[in-house]
Amino acid sequence: MSRTNQQIRLAARPTGEPRPTDWDLVAEPVPEPEEGELLVEVLYLSIDPAMRGWMNAAKSYITPVEIGEVMRAAGIGRVAASRHPGFAVGDHVTGVFGVQEYCLSRGHGVTIIDPDLAPLPTYLGALGISGMTAYFGLLEIGKPQPGQTVVVSAAAGAVGSMAGQIAKIHGCRVIGIAGGADKCRTLVDQLGFDAAIDHHTQGIRTSLRELAPHGVDVYFDNVGGETLDAVLTRLALGARIVVCGAISQYNATQAVKGPSNYLSLLTSRASMTGMVVFDYADRYPEALEALTTWRSAGTLRTLEDVATGGVPAFPDTLLKLFRGENLGKLVLQIAEA
Amino acid sequence: MSRTNQQIRLAARPTGEPRPTDWDLVAEPVPEPEEGELLVEVLYLSIDPAMRGWMNAAKSYITPVEIGEVMRAAGIGRVAASRHPGFAVGDHVTGVFGVQEYCLSRGHGVTIIDPDLAPLPTYLGALGISGMTAYFGLLEIGKPQPGQTVVVSAAAGAVGSMAGQIAKIHGCRVIGIAGGADKCRTLVDQLGFDAAIDHHTQGIRTSLRELAPHGVDVYFDNVGGETLDAVLTRLALGARIVVCGAISQYNATQAVKGPSNYLSLLTSRASMTGMVVFDYADRYPEALEALTTWRSAGTLRTLEDVATGGVPAFPDTLLKLFRGENLGKLVLQIAEA
Repeated sequence: MSRTNQQIRLAARPTGEPRPTDWDLVAEPVPEPEEGELLVEVLYLSIDPAMRGWMNAAKSYITPVEIGEVMRAAGIGRVAASRHPGFAVGDHVTGVFGVQEYCLSRGHGVTIIDPDLAPLPTYLGALGISGMTAYFGLLEIGKPQPGQTVVVSAAAGAVGSMAGQIAKIHGCRVIGIAGGADKCRTLVDQLGFDAAIDHHTQGIRTSLRELAPHGVDVYFDNVGGETLDAVLTRLALGARIVVCGAISQYNATQAVKGPSNYLSLLTSRASMTGMVVFDYADRYPEALEALTTWRSAGTLRTLEDVATGGVPAFPDTLLKLFRGENLGKLVLQIAEA
Repeated sequence: MSRTNQQIRLAARPTGEPRPTDWDLVAEPVPEPEEGELLVEVLYLSIDPAMRGWMNAAKSYITPVEIGEVMRAAGIGRVAASRHPGFAVGDHVTGVFGVQEYCLSRGHGVTIIDPDLAPLPTYLGALGISGMTAYFGLLEIGKPQPGQTVVVSAAAGAVGSMAGQIAKIHGCRVIGIAGGADKCRTLVDQLGFDAAIDHHTQGIRTSLRELAPHGVDVYFDNVGGETLDAVLTRLALGARIVVCGAISQYNATQAVKGPSNYLSLLTSRASMTGMVVFDYADRYPEALEALTTWRSAGTLRTLEDVATGGVPAFPDTLLKLFRGENLGKLVLQIAEA
């Protein structure tokens, strides 16, 4: 049997937005598992803003992807062959499988999931790292109190859409910032946000003056840049800013734009705190239980944006994120589920 | 009796560094207290970086000084006349008396001090707002633990020199950043800092790599700008940044330089929190007791830089702060004590 395993490998470290020449599309024979290994057929890949950081040489909270390596990606797959006692052929699993059709694994970090509990892409979004990030970032760092005003940027994205809904569940008034009328409508009409600001057509500062007249108590920031600076001018006393990401800056070719208005932290006695979801790994079960319960109860809606085209479509799919073209969790389908 | 009361009044709102034309030096007759009032002869004035902010029209944590108003300043004085039951002629008092030789007061915010307990200028520095700021900013926001590394900017200034020493008293390793070899020598030789970085001649990033190889746990920031950006690159996991001030930016005529490296907060799971000392007003007695005890025990040394020339010297004395010409608390003597 001579199946091939298509892969995307990092060819060069990008400057600015990744270009086609930064990637190599290669095909290898599908490997056979040895004793203690399993072979995963990848079904869906999680497409994440953090991927851009992994392409840089600089060590961050995680080691960079090396030139020539298969691009790192979390995914959902099905066990295609197993010589590992913990996994049987046909099991659905989640793990960091990389941008490829088949992944050979020794089982580290691979978790069996129940495909009947939720659609497979949901395990990469609301019930995956995006959901965990929203849950712990909002609740542990943002510490929202009932009645407080919570603002979320990239609110129609994988993390933002969860963070906003979790804040609603906790009794907050929630304002989402997103790019485009469709996204804003979805936030209010489908996800129950109290209001949405379309940053393509509305000024954030002036909109917040009207929508959050008593100031912003919690700002869950996924974008950085001008948005962060605008929200900084509208902080309530004692506000908490969750620094979850800064997608507006990830392709910057010049120095990151620091928040000019950071001295609002002083006048507002506010804090700005960074979070990395992996620190909460031992508490994922707690979050998963809460998110699953809310999802079953219908108080939490999950949005997935499923791109097609398999492994060769990865480079273009990644760019959709930076262009704000996704609504909800962006996943790339690699094979038929 | 026709004594005059020299005053400095705000003539214009400055752009950038305050100029002589932004001030009016005027002389008025010394007022007579009415029933319930006291007249304070001002002896020393506290010269503070925050004064620059009070000159701006924008409302901050405190209302601006209006054009034509006597410039706001905290001071030490002696009661020259009193028709107030709480104050007797000859009492030494501290309060917000303004840049003038005599202040008429109804006693609000005026506190009697004991001139035998400490030199009068010390009440404006180590035992005044500067000391309170250092105490609560470091301990409540910085939360230093024994053995941790604490970095203080403007470390030879009124607040920085206190914050560094309080961190030493709490068992930390303390590195000061100051401008000039003399200041750095004072920090290490007289105040017991473990090390000092002279930002006139040494790179902060490279110096910290050597002096804080395990990263910075607490950064007490008084200056902002490039210094903040440099320290952000050297944070330890879970670091706390105390945003106390940003003297490098107070005369900025363009937008404040935001910290480009703020995403280190994310990778280091660190926080940056603003503080305003007035929030701790009900706990000043606790701080005063601690500071007085440490001072008596000789573990806390107080530095004052006493400028002379009286009220007319105020405009030039204020500029000394922004030029980094003071060592320790800058006070302006107004009259013989």
